[in-house]
Amino acid sequence: MPRFRLAIEYAGTRYSGWQIQKNARTVQGEIDRAVREVIGHGRFELCGSGRTDAGVHALGQVAHLDVATDLPPLTLQRRVNETLPPDINVLAIEPVTRRFHARHSAQARSYLFQISRRRTAFAKPFVWWVKEPLDLDAMRAAAARFTGLHDFRGFTDDEPGEKSTKVQLDRLELAEAGALVLIRVRGSHFLWKMVRRLVGVLVEVGRGGLSATDVRAFLRTPSGTPARLTAPAAGLFLERVYYDAAEPDPPLNPAVPVP
Amino acid sequence: MPRFRLAIEYAGTRYSGWQIQKNARTVQGEIDRAVREVIGHGRFELCGSGRTDAGVHALGQVAHLDVATDLPPLTLQRRVNETLPPDINVLAIEPVTRRFHARHSAQARSYLFQISRRRTAFAKPFVWWVKEPLDLDAMRAAAARFTGLHDFRGFTDDEPGEKSTKVQLDRLELAEAGALVLIRVRGSHFLWKMVRRLVGVLVEVGRGGLSATDVRAFLRTPSGTPARLTAPAAGLFLERVYYDAAEPDPPLNPAVPVP
Repeated sequence: MPRFRLAIEYAGTRYSGWQIQKNARTVQGEIDRAVREVIGHGRFELCGSGRTDAGVHALGQVAHLDVATDLPPLTLQRRVNETLPPDINVLAIEPVTRRFHARHSAQARSYLFQISRRRTAFAKPFVWWVKEPLDLDAMRAAAARFTGLHDFRGFTDDEPGEKSTKVQLDRLELAEAGALVLIRVRGSHFLWKMVRRLVGVLVEVGRGGLSATDVRAFLRTPSGTPARLTAPAAGLFLERVYYDAAEPDPPLNPAVPVP
Repeated sequence: MPRFRLAIEYAGTRYSGWQIQKNARTVQGEIDRAVREVIGHGRFELCGSGRTDAGVHALGQVAHLDVATDLPPLTLQRRVNETLPPDINVLAIEPVTRRFHARHSAQARSYLFQISRRRTAFAKPFVWWVKEPLDLDAMRAAAARFTGLHDFRGFTDDEPGEKSTKVQLDRLELAEAGALVLIRVRGSHFLWKMVRRLVGVLVEVGRGGLSATDVRAFLRTPSGTPARLTAPAAGLFLERVYYDAAEPDPPLNPAVPVP
């Protein structure tokens, strides 16, 4: 069966995450339903690059779709979009060889987190509003401790032993944009809840409640603190999936800005 | 009674416009309710710089509030915001003299309109998605016909004779930003539906359905065409109210961008 590569953006607010589930509205479930409706049968397979949690957004989720269809990719894209709800948008559909696999071929992923330092009428579903002042220098110093290859066991709810909790974190950047503080991480892969716990710990450092030394200790000795500090899903975006590890990072810009 | 100047941003999607009404949810109605709740009585007066229509947003609506209160302005702002729904946000409250009047003292207003050239998962409530290609040069040429002092009778549903339909249009700018085409107008004041009809006419020029000559005719001889072309409220933002006519324009940036 021919394979297509899909690029997808979605506002995750109304969804129980990416992964298709019975009795829950999910992003993959909506795309599955739209494809079924457009091609008129269920003989296809849709596979995402990875899951996103309930309420998490995506600027560039990638999936592959195996389907026998006479529709040109642009027509397929248009019809699927016409059938999808407005908060899910297929940005592109293109034919690929069967050597491309949305999950297995991915070399790296990046996530963007948006912290707002003020109340906002427009961007509320897309930020974590932190009211206390943040010491960005302290946050940057702590962020530097996380890059490289580390065991992030203390930052996930993944079952221990099920898979390795060692993750290569290529970059962890902080930037200011208007009233936003942006945190972007790029790594080989991410464990369940890991990015939100990294962000939660960095924000607690910014508030003065943790030191860079505490942060280093969380990597050595598992602690319940990162879990207690888990940042809300609303601020998190799956930014990009890299299929070529040499591909450079895009500019670090807000997904939904707050002036 | 002391007077305070308020700056307010709101996402207009869920509201029947600014102006307080019985049996309808309005922005002024929500602020009125919040102020009443915070100060504990109804002995105050709230006056906006002007109305915005149902579904229209504001980045910088201005109002004045006459109220006797012991609360410092920052406390008043915080408490009112805590009481307001999340899509209305009081950006600032500051004491002013009674010579300041939100409506009468305003020298000029600017509106921003966002046209998207693609489907968007995040910005849908804040754009008009125009699917046809747009000739921006033709739109710019037509826009130039509107600046200056003109009778915009053909662009409003205001009752003729009730007030003058002559409006001084200082500037009408077009810019591209990612997938967006931004249209910004600055003028002494605007008539009911005028901005949305200007935008609708300019988009029709961009699509090739009208010429710059047609546009000039609409200013001379009232026609039903601008009304038929009225752009949707979702793309429109009250950007700024100018109390000093010499105040320069802010940079022309998207309110909610579409990359």
